[in-house]
Amino acid sequence: MTTVSIIGSGIMATALTWPLAHNGHEIRLVGTHLDREIIDSIKSTGVHPNLDLKVPDAVTPYQLEDAPAAFEGAELVMSGVNSFGVEWAGQQLAGLLRPGQKVLAIAKGMVAADNGDLSILPDVLAAQVPEDLRNSVTWSAIAGPSIAGELAVERHTCVVFTSRTGEVLDELAATFRTPYYHIWTSTDFVGVEVCAAMKNCYALGIGFAEGVLNALGGREGRYRNYNFAAALFAQGAREMFDMMGILGGDTMTPSWLPGVGDEWVTAAGGRNVKVGGLIGEGMRFSEAKASMPGVTLEGAAAIEVIGRALSPLTDRGVIGKGQFPLLRHLYEVIGLDQPLDLPWDQFFDGVGAGLSSGFANEIRRETGD
Amino acid sequence: MTTVSIIGSGIMATALTWPLAHNGHEIRLVGTHLDREIIDSIKSTGVHPNLDLKVPDAVTPYQLEDAPAAFEGAELVMSGVNSFGVEWAGQQLAGLLRPGQKVLAIAKGMVAADNGDLSILPDVLAAQVPEDLRNSVTWSAIAGPSIAGELAVERHTCVVFTSRTGEVLDELAATFRTPYYHIWTSTDFVGVEVCAAMKNCYALGIGFAEGVLNALGGREGRYRNYNFAAALFAQGAREMFDMMGILGGDTMTPSWLPGVGDEWVTAAGGRNVKVGGLIGEGMRFSEAKASMPGVTLEGAAAIEVIGRALSPLTDRGVIGKGQFPLLRHLYEVIGLDQPLDLPWDQFFDGVGAGLSSGFANEIRRETGD
Repeated sequence: MTTVSIIGSGIMATALTWPLAHNGHEIRLVGTHLDREIIDSIKSTGVHPNLDLKVPDAVTPYQLEDAPAAFEGAELVMSGVNSFGVEWAGQQLAGLLRPGQKVLAIAKGMVAADNGDLSILPDVLAAQVPEDLRNSVTWSAIAGPSIAGELAVERHTCVVFTSRTGEVLDELAATFRTPYYHIWTSTDFVGVEVCAAMKNCYALGIGFAEGVLNALGGREGRYRNYNFAAALFAQGAREMFDMMGILGGDTMTPSWLPGVGDEWVTAAGGRNVKVGGLIGEGMRFSEAKASMPGVTLEGAAAIEVIGRALSPLTDRGVIGKGQFPLLRHLYEVIGLDQPLDLPWDQFFDGVGAGLSSGFANEIRRETGD
Repeated sequence: MTTVSIIGSGIMATALTWPLAHNGHEIRLVGTHLDREIIDSIKSTGVHPNLDLKVPDAVTPYQLEDAPAAFEGAELVMSGVNSFGVEWAGQQLAGLLRPGQKVLAIAKGMVAADNGDLSILPDVLAAQVPEDLRNSVTWSAIAGPSIAGELAVERHTCVVFTSRTGEVLDELAATFRTPYYHIWTSTDFVGVEVCAAMKNCYALGIGFAEGVLNALGGREGRYRNYNFAAALFAQGAREMFDMMGILGGDTMTPSWLPGVGDEWVTAAGGRNVKVGGLIGEGMRFSEAKASMPGVTLEGAAAIEVIGRALSPLTDRGVIGKGQFPLLRHLYEVIGLDQPLDLPWDQFFDGVGAGLSSGFANEIRRETGD
């Protein structure tokens, strides 16, 4: 039995308590300052109000001020906050972590320096912790297609645990693996996390398709806009593959669960897809966002961060001018509030570019094969 | 202006007359023996009954017996039949083709020899034509995500024209390209066509997810079965990548429109997804098929062909025992009428296999890089 302490009691962090409870572990779930009502609800009724499910009996809820007690003797520590809370969570962990613990993070996103250099979120989390302590624990993360509520109701879910070293991953996977929670591992920490961040961008873009259809008056029509969405899906995949060569991820990481798998599930619905739909109908992002008050949009935030970085990266010659045409336009739409006007003919290296062979060669060149 | 003669007047062949008409070409649409009512309808009212749309004025309909007149002087010849009609269409073309013509095919599928060797459909089409004539024309095909009706109502559609040589592709693309029909080219004829066939298999499998959800009583519930579907989508993508190394396709062809793009659009709906849903609910394939009388199931047919080939290919050592676990199970379900029982832990090289790095190395090894 492992003692697991989790900081952050949002839906994904809480959903992960189901496989942990299934395996007989002790779980201490600590709410952030934004989670007070969630923890109150679990304390009084056992129900997580956003999941609308009673959490497993093995879960003990804690308010933030009780975090030191909740972390006492933990072997596994999870950062359960979303991308907006990673720095804060790292600052909390700086005072709560103990040498020898295993840290596992779930936020999906990246941060960018002014010069465009991109960092993965687990590294941002770790950077908040003093170096000695940081190096005395292990840092890992979960990625791949997993809608929280589906995991909590024990639907088959296939994910990837990732870290720079393999040994801890086998231990973590064994802690979580159940007959419905299928876990693979990857030591391509950068590649997996880059995919996790980028798919949020493209899922918002795929949402344009339904909105454009509505604007054409096709909401109730026989013919949908799936060709349009599929092309955006494919260009998104292409750009994830392209980013591997630039940031040092494994060439093939976008090809399975962390890339196209997670892109698929994220495009299947949610708030980012909805805001994409409103933009497709003709709204500017500022209007679409204003129509959804209080809603956090991780996809839009990822576009602002990664999309903004493309310009300095281009200026520095790190990426080519013709690369990432979809993400560049997503940034124009989300970051600069410009109208939607997809650059179709720039996709896939440009119309008529005879992509397939050239792309394969380029990928090989970039990865030094 | 190009004179284009098309054999087969199904929805995809007919949808392609919209971009051709947009560009001012003359189109002669010849029905097969199964298409008599379609041609009668177009002759009398201009309406294609299955598309429920009036075809462009530039289209002249012909019954099959008038095919010789329809092919007189054509520069571009299209095989517009689906995968079930390819041999028949090739036999027709044997008597209709003239040296110097460009042939363009749209069927998606493969055929297998008894020893498991797989052939792409454009090669099956060409094989019906005497060698001298075969070598005096060019053979090309269209692949990528394109639902026929969406193209016909001029929704943005991104596709790939493919052939073994590039020059003819540029000419063909110029003939069809419009502001809504975006065309890329690839000389990876085998890779593109293998993806086109395989995605039909996986789309049927992705359909299981909705049926399994219904069987769980989740039809109206808040939590869907998208994690399940996304994992199947990703494993399908993985198996398309794997097949590239085996059949000689470009490593990266599955990564864009011909692979994950077409897989996405095919999984978005249609008859194959529906039959997958019935199987997911608990029916055997034989029952599901019987409940949909008169419906052609190209995905099921592709599973029977490609899935059956996996066993002799394994016996001959062409593929490994652990490869294609999803397609092998699809064959058990469709070809052998066995109940659904997904081998989750065999996916992605097996649970805990630490796929990512190993997969990339394997791909490089297979392609000799």
